[in-house]
Amino acid sequence: MSLKLYGYWRSSASYRVRIALNLKGLEYEYIAIDLKKDGGQQHSAQYDAVNPAHLVPTFVDDDEDIILNQSLSIIEYLDERYREPYPLLPAHSVEKARIRALAQDIACDIQPLANLRVLTALQQQYELSAEHSNQWASHWITKGLSGIERRLQTQAGRYCFGFDVTLADVCLVPQVYAAKRFNVDMTPFPLISRIYHQCQTLQAFQKAQPEEQADCP
Amino acid sequence: MSLKLYGYWRSSASYRVRIALNLKGLEYEYIAIDLKKDGGQQHSAQYDAVNPAHLVPTFVDDDEDIILNQSLSIIEYLDERYREPYPLLPAHSVEKARIRALAQDIACDIQPLANLRVLTALQQQYELSAEHSNQWASHWITKGLSGIERRLQTQAGRYCFGFDVTLADVCLVPQVYAAKRFNVDMTPFPLISRIYHQCQTLQAFQKAQPEEQADCP
Repeated sequence: MSLKLYGYWRSSASYRVRIALNLKGLEYEYIAIDLKKDGGQQHSAQYDAVNPAHLVPTFVDDDEDIILNQSLSIIEYLDERYREPYPLLPAHSVEKARIRALAQDIACDIQPLANLRVLTALQQQYELSAEHSNQWASHWITKGLSGIERRLQTQAGRYCFGFDVTLADVCLVPQVYAAKRFNVDMTPFPLISRIYHQCQTLQAFQKAQPEEQADCP
Repeated sequence: MSLKLYGYWRSSASYRVRIALNLKGLEYEYIAIDLKKDGGQQHSAQYDAVNPAHLVPTFVDDDEDIILNQSLSIIEYLDERYREPYPLLPAHSVEKARIRALAQDIACDIQPLANLRVLTALQQQYELSAEHSNQWASHWITKGLSGIERRLQTQAGRYCFGFDVTLADVCLVPQVYAAKRFNVDMTPFPLISRIYHQCQTLQAFQKAQPEEQADCP
């Protein structure tokens, strides 16, 4: 198979790319990189050659000799290349910018503060308990979702932006999954919760769930 | 003036948008949001109406009734709308994806871990000294720049990607500025350093420097 995704079952960013690949109807080989085993397989010499930042995901298209990192960049690439029948970004610049901004509200302002490497560093460098580092995650997720709930009030339809799935939904679902994991109280976020459940009715989102991946213990 | 930028002199994300506006030759009104004064002016009722996430920057085009957040989204919007004569992203999907990925290496994996709100939270919630929180910043910046230096070895020309300024350079320069502020040792990053100095010879980058802004104390 020419398309490959290096990922980790519980990584939000890997989860986003899995959703996008499924929405585009693309078959791909999933190569699990265990972020916890052997001190983190992302640091292996083999993976270093694929991604010198030692982060997941990495997307590979062997036929085209393409290796790409960064989930949002991979998804936009897929969307440009396999645009029809369901584009994840509209053609109009302003709409597109709003959708990208919501995706970045998640990918730049929430997820980076609550991922495994950061929580591990907090525990190791500052001797914080797992409980404390989980509170740290939950604090930033709650803060970020509050802003997003407000934005959605003016633009949500069935999904984040109107009645078609966009890049924003592809990012929102893994973030809500992480929120639940860190016991974030979702009652202040009715719109986000409704959109999350709406997305979960779609097969592309179901198949991408962490618990559906081969590397889920 | 119809274009407005709400920003803060030392915010990396604001700095990125200033560079892009200058490269596009656009005049704009700069509205300073002091992240330190009055417990953070980004939390004021007035700014809340502009950006419910209480973060900078926010870009406004009054003529078009557009309010946008997230620096990368704003810059791509500007690039789509004012494409010529110097596009910040090329037309080809693969090249575009690589440039976006490098921008996101900075905007998703480095800057969010080393900005004012995170360092303040570390100090307040865990009673870390300023010295410790600065080490936290310097740790993540060093880690992130190491991956970027490696990537640049295969693609850099005068700038990050060949011989034209792209979105990647627009993000790299503010990140290097922050690295210097946190006393990151730049000797392992000769390519990054060279590109940084090359960019600083351009007026668009010079005018965008934090110390050139009206709100720099």
